[in-house]
Parts: sequence; C-alpha cells; structure tokens
Amino acid sequence: MRDGGVDAVHVTIAYHEDFRETVRNITDWNLRFQRHSDLIMQAFTGDDIRHARATGRTAIIFGFQTPAPIEADIGLVEVVHRLGARFMQLSYNNQSLLATGCYEAEDPGLTRMGRQVVTEMNRVGLVVDMSHSADRSTLDAIAHSQRPIAITHANPAKWHPARRNKSDTVLRALAESGGMLGLSLYPHHLRDGSACTLQSFCDMVARTAELMSVDQIGIGSDLCQDQPDSVVEWMRVGRWTREIDYGEGSASAAGFPDQPDWFTDNRSLPGLADGLRNAGFSQEEADKIMGDNWLHFFDRNFGPLSDDRTNYTSAARA
Amino acid sequence: MRDGGVDAVHVTIAYHEDFRETVRNITDWNLRFQRHSDLIMQAFTGDDIRHARATGRTAIIFGFQTPAPIEADIGLVEVVHRLGARFMQLSYNNQSLLATGCYEAEDPGLTRMGRQVVTEMNRVGLVVDMSHSADRSTLDAIAHSQRPIAITHANPAKWHPARRNKSDTVLRALAESGGMLGLSLYPHHLRDGSACTLQSFCDMVARTAELMSVDQIGIGSDLCQDQPDSVVEWMRVGRWTREIDYGEGSASAAGFPDQPDWFTDNRSLPGLADGLRNAGFSQEEADKIMGDNWLHFFDRNFGPLSDDRTNYTSAARA
Repeated sequence: MRDGGVDAVHVTIAYHEDFRETVRNITDWNLRFQRHSDLIMQAFTGDDIRHARATGRTAIIFGFQTPAPIEADIGLVEVVHRLGARFMQLSYNNQSLLATGCYEAEDPGLTRMGRQVVTEMNRVGLVVDMSHSADRSTLDAIAHSQRPIAITHANPAKWHPARRNKSDTVLRALAESGGMLGLSLYPHHLRDGSACTLQSFCDMVARTAELMSVDQIGIGSDLCQDQPDSVVEWMRVGRWTREIDYGEGSASAAGFPDQPDWFTDNRSLPGLADGLRNAGFSQEEADKIMGDNWLHFFDRNFGPLSDDRTNYTSAARA
Repeated sequence: MRDGGVDAVHVTIAYHEDFRETVRNITDWNLRFQRHSDLIMQAFTGDDIRHARATGRTAIIFGFQTPAPIEADIGLVEVVHRLGARFMQLSYNNQSLLATGCYEAEDPGLTRMGRQVVTEMNRVGLVVDMSHSADRSTLDAIAHSQRPIAITHANPAKWHPARRNKSDTVLRALAESGGMLGLSLYPHHLRDGSACTLQSFCDMVARTAELMSVDQIGIGSDLCQDQPDSVVEWMRVGRWTREIDYGEGSASAAGFPDQPDWFTDNRSLPGLADGLRNAGFSQEEADKIMGDNWLHFFDRNFGPLSDDRTNYTSAARA
C-alpha cells in the first residue's frame, strides 16, 4: 500500500461474523495498529486520513459487508460506530433482517427493522452500503436514509450485466441523493473478466461520470490481495447453508479469479490514475476519482447528525 | 397445571434471545426440573409425555417463537434440538433471515437460508412453526418442508380477521400436508376479544374441524399466565427498534388483555373439553382435540428422519 501511494483503505473486517467475532477481528486490527504504527493507523474521520497522508502512513477504515455484527440488536449500531465501523452493508447476497441481497429471487425492500436501523445509522454516522443488495432494497434505502448512502464496490450493469452490478435507475437515484459509487476491480464485475483492459475500464468510468457526476464516483477496488481461497468460501457460504454456494464463481472455478494484468495489487493504483487521464479526465478530475471524492464524503458522513431531528427515542417514550 | 389435568405444555423459552441467552433460559428450566421433579419434567419425545401422565406430572416441551436462538448459523439447528427444542417459528411478526412475519408490508416467501434451514429442521426433527408468519412464507414452508409443519397458536381469519389469524387457503394447505393447527385462546385472536363466549369458540372449532379434519386440530392456548407486562413488551419490541411497537395491542392498551371468564388459566381446560362436547364433538373427538392429536404429531415429528434422504452434506461436498 505504501508503494502504491495509498492514503486510506476501507477494509472489510466482518462478513458473517457476529458481534463477538467482530470484536475479535477489531482486537486483531488494534494489535496491528500497535505493532505497525509506522505503516498504518485507524481512521475514524476524514481528518485522520489527512494525518495519515501527512505522516506517510495508510489509514484503515473499518467496514462490514453484512449487518451480522449488530445481530438482532439495534443498540449495537452505536457500539460498532464507537469501535470504528464506518460502513455497513444492509444485506449481502441473501436476505438479512434489514434488507434483501442480490441473490434472492425477490426483493420486498427494507424491512420494519431495516427502516429503524437506517435511521439509527444516520444518527450516529455509520454509512449505509448497498453493494451486495438487491435493487428495490437499494432504492428504498436511498429514499429512507436522511443522509447520502454508498455503493462502495460495484460497476454499472449496462457495461457488464453481472448480478452484483447496478442498473442506471439505481445509479441515478444514488447520485441524486448525494451518494457515492466505488468502482470495482473484481474480475466478476468487469467486462471480459480477467481479460478486461485498462482502457475499457476507464471508458466505463467516463460514462459513469456522465451519468452520476465526476464528484460522486471513486475507487472501490474489492481487492483481495494475498487472501487464501478459504476467505472467498467464507464470504459466500458463511453459516447459512450446509451445501456449498459458489456465488459469482462456479464449482469448476471456486476460488478467487485472476486480477487483470494492469491491476494486480495496491501498487497498480498509480497506473489506474494514468489510465483515467488517458481516457480524458483532467488531473483534478482524476484526483477526485482516486480519493478526493471519498474524503469529502467521509468528512460529511462519518460523524453524528449535527441537529437533533433523530432524537426520536425520548419523544416516542415520553 | 396439575389442577387442570395438563399432561404437556409447549413452553416458549425464547422470543428474541440469541443462542447464549436461550441457553441461559434452558439452564433456568433445567434447575426447575431438578427442584420440582414431582410436578414437571422435560419432554423430548411423545413417550416422555406418556411417562409424565403415568407419573402424575406435566411434561414441558421447549419451543422458540423466533429463529433468533440459531442466530445466522444453520449448525445451531441440531444443537438446539439436542438441548430439547422441538418447535421453532421461522419468523415472528417481522422479517427474519428465514421467512417473513405477518406485520411486514410484503412477503417474498422463504429466503435462500430459509429453505436450507427447513431442510435441516426436517433432518433433525425440529418442527417448523408458522404461527406469526405471513401467508406466502407459510405456504412456501408447507411446500418446501418434507415433514408436516405446525401453526401452534392461531385461529381462522374467517371467524375473526386478526392479522395473526389464518386464511382458509393456508389452513387447507396445512391440513393437506398433514400439519397441525393449535387453536388460540389469546383474546386478540378471538371474535369479540375478551368477551368471546365459550360457545362461539367451540362452534369455531367445529367449523375448523370440517375444514381441516378433526385429526389435525388441537389447543394452542397462547396463555401468558402470571406473566408481567414487561414480557409482552419484550415479545413485541425485542431489540429491533428504539421506538415502542404495540403489535396486536395499542398505546392505550399496551399490556396483556383480559382472558375470557371461561378461560382464565390452566384450570379452565376441563371446561373447554365440556364445551367441545356440548358443541357436538364425541368424547373421542374431544380427546383428540384436547391432546391426542398433538401427541401423535409429536410421535411422528420430534425425531430424526428415519431414512437418509437428507444426508446431502456429504454428497454435496464429495
């Protein structure tokens, strides 16, 4: 990450882990922060990222790919935010207590608990992430959330019609509500998969900027650098089935797919910035896409709501 | 219960409790079994109920009103069955990981995890209970389950159109699949509520026997004897909202409603049997409804599947 000039990373610290298991992952990260304080530090705010950059380190932002860490307890939203969580997906491929994932046959939208939890996430500053959610749930989340949401890692379905990629309807609604899209470099989300070219990717970014605005897109690499295949099985299977589910893969290609040769690890990021400029973006626009947009989003959305509109608990109990 | 001649009770030992909290409730019950072995004993099988009856005691059958005790872990199905759980509702008013509850606006049916969990419940002998579920999820569970399911406590919606009561379509599908309906004595499920008469109730039982067969109905009293109002708040609110949800009640009537004067506690059960005979049931039919049907259902459905059709795990992994 240092060789690639990476100032900040949104790290998945939980897929299907429950609260206690997530806390164990956090203590593992806290030990890394202590042992490798010359290289990494935890970020709770946008300013922490500025501090990491000024001191030549990479800021680590905690995120959850499912709502499993809050279990069935809305009170844990505030607790995980205090511990550093800044993104939480409302569903991951399957139905959750809150919303529907993109692999379910049908999508009834946000659940009763989902609406309550989004309001609570808004209150404390935990960003709603709908990367693996189904379309109607995503549109519901955009409509119900008082603050902008994010789709941290996905691409337009028009470019590559994978189940995880997003329709123009969703991307337009995301943009209109002030949300952010992180463009994914996971081969299953790329046109031509591992054979996708840098030019094809950057042309897609240009078309997405036209659709959403150049201020509302960034990178959401979905990079699984140096992770064993057991991680991808955990992502897909968790503990919800006793069979194997291959998700975006298949029985004959169950592991991580090969990355395209122009994006193999974190050191490839400068080359991606070059590709954006070659696709017609100005230096300022490329800087926005490579990080400035996310930084401004973090500044606005990682802290509590400044006013007291959501202090509904005392009102409802009064 | 002894004064009412109650041989067996299906006791709710978890609403929104997670696995660890459920185990704590089980250890509380185990202590009661030890301290009051002259009055109660745990039932794992139908024969345990025959033994309780022969020794003048009441058998306690553990049940869960939500799937919260298995959290997001299909492996816990077998574990809770080993600990004595014999009924588990797939959803309770709200959307769960498995199915939809009757208070959600829409019902997409069983989820991906729901189908896996029903298969696993079938394998070990944990009965699917859809008392608080929405209609489509209930029909899905009936269709997907290899073994009969139960609606342990609800009445026909045609008699009293409460959200918790069931349509004729659901009741017919339940009967055709060999399932059981437990008729509820909770005032919110009764025509005229607390003012419901014994004759009105028993006439409803007669009509339900015509619809479903006299062999597939029993009592599912939903009785909350000597419980404080905090229990009804825990049922309704759990930890899914920071507001108060009144469920079947209302802000002005938040607690338990009054029972009808002919069914105030367990001692009222013999009078209910009299009422059934006065409504035209024979002694044998009244006995079936008062307990024999449930006993035969337990005999068939509390143990593992006798054949190995569901040994899919090793096959899928081979």
